[in-house]
Amino acid sequence: MRKKEIFENIKRKKSFLCVGLDTDITKIPKHLLSTEDPVFEFNKQIIDATLSLAVAYKPNVAFYESLGADGWMSLKKTIDYLNQFKDDVFTIADAKRGDIGNTSKLYAKAFFETLDFDAVTVAPYMGEDSVSPFLSYQDKWVVLLALTSNKGADDFQNSVLINNNRLFETVLTTAQTWGNDENMMFVVGATRAEMLTDVRKIVPNHFLLVPGVGAQGGKLEDVATYGINKECGLLVNASRNIIFASADKDFAIKAKEEASKLQKDMQKVLEINNLI
Amino acid sequence: MRKKEIFENIKRKKSFLCVGLDTDITKIPKHLLSTEDPVFEFNKQIIDATLSLAVAYKPNVAFYESLGADGWMSLKKTIDYLNQFKDDVFTIADAKRGDIGNTSKLYAKAFFETLDFDAVTVAPYMGEDSVSPFLSYQDKWVVLLALTSNKGADDFQNSVLINNNRLFETVLTTAQTWGNDENMMFVVGATRAEMLTDVRKIVPNHFLLVPGVGAQGGKLEDVATYGINKECGLLVNASRNIIFASADKDFAIKAKEEASKLQKDMQKVLEINNLI
Repeated sequence: MRKKEIFENIKRKKSFLCVGLDTDITKIPKHLLSTEDPVFEFNKQIIDATLSLAVAYKPNVAFYESLGADGWMSLKKTIDYLNQFKDDVFTIADAKRGDIGNTSKLYAKAFFETLDFDAVTVAPYMGEDSVSPFLSYQDKWVVLLALTSNKGADDFQNSVLINNNRLFETVLTTAQTWGNDENMMFVVGATRAEMLTDVRKIVPNHFLLVPGVGAQGGKLEDVATYGINKECGLLVNASRNIIFASADKDFAIKAKEEASKLQKDMQKVLEINNLI
Repeated sequence: MRKKEIFENIKRKKSFLCVGLDTDITKIPKHLLSTEDPVFEFNKQIIDATLSLAVAYKPNVAFYESLGADGWMSLKKTIDYLNQFKDDVFTIADAKRGDIGNTSKLYAKAFFETLDFDAVTVAPYMGEDSVSPFLSYQDKWVVLLALTSNKGADDFQNSVLINNNRLFETVLTTAQTWGNDENMMFVVGATRAEMLTDVRKIVPNHFLLVPGVGAQGGKLEDVATYGINKECGLLVNASRNIIFASADKDFAIKAKEEASKLQKDMQKVLEINNLI
């Protein structure tokens, strides 16, 4: 999917919501556990319930990987199901991979071929040759970690270098020599919304994937104030607040209600910014 | 496995060799492709051939993941096979994972429970709470990326901070407040052997996992000169040079020959340093 199409979907759905499929088998409704593949069955019902409200879905690979080969089967079924709506939703494997070139090439194969995701999250620590194999795929995206939503982001990402830039700013600047705003996005946590001003100085046109709204404490209004651009430029992720809104048989209905609240708030943001 | 046991194995086998199971299905001998699980069959024969010469094995998870659920089955069979020799070899999942706390917890579960590895490689970019869930397992290890063997290491890892330390040095220093030399090791590439002097100033007692000898150009003698400590403190990884020494039916014999050459060089290093 190209940037233009992402923005078209945002305008059509009046939403820049990304639903995080952090599908924890210990938290899904009990009645699903007797189905053949409870994780996929849960995801399918969440997707069906939220499809009109979300422009992106982001399975968190750790939750699948922790179940071994079975988890990978559930992940495969989930992306195959999402790909029935290929023009309608952008798909992100939240995997935070990154290794030397010949190995990153295999990770790219895993997420762009074996599993046909539009995008994968990548960690920048190992530099250009760990990221570039993901950029060699047409119409696929790297979502590079810049400033994450967790406390640990202060350990290194906020460190100041001798050139007076912080590490995450150097990552943003350097990464622009590797790709462009048609094949790269950046992760910037909603818990650090005020820093989106600094981020936008460096990457005015890139899409940003913003986790941390909801359970982690980030506020949508702040993210929009500091981060929005002329093509919206934001995919705001919500996971637990939506998918675990209820642990009962009404989980999909409750998930839709939560997604709908966020969509309405996002519609206001888009209207205020004259984007719809 | 504890540090003392790793050193005992090093002295007994006169080797600090780690065999990297970067098992590329496009490179394994053709006659194996008709077996039920060619990747596992290849690994099994490599393990059998090199078990007396190596103290550690390190499957590179990307190679398995690129094959989807089938690859995860092969990885599971490989670690289960290795765990028949639990006191004899240290096992490392080369996965380079790392995410916010609740997600890293699931990655830890994947590699320490679903797959019973001794250690997993972790990327430091997201800081303490992305690493600490791996450290909560008794007798399990985090192998944290510090200074990697690839060209891209210069993009960020070698960046100088305002305190005049390079980023990888800050990672080494900071990580010591999270764990200790009984549950953490660090990745330092053999292609930067001279920098092991700087690394050893910060982490004199930790084991280092050193990739990059062989195919990537690093030299064992240099690694030993700059990196060895009183408990050896080195696990030197070799992958392609050993496992793909031959693409024919003699692949295991040739792998053993290559591993044996490295073991003999390592024995000399251990003798010169009065460790055996």
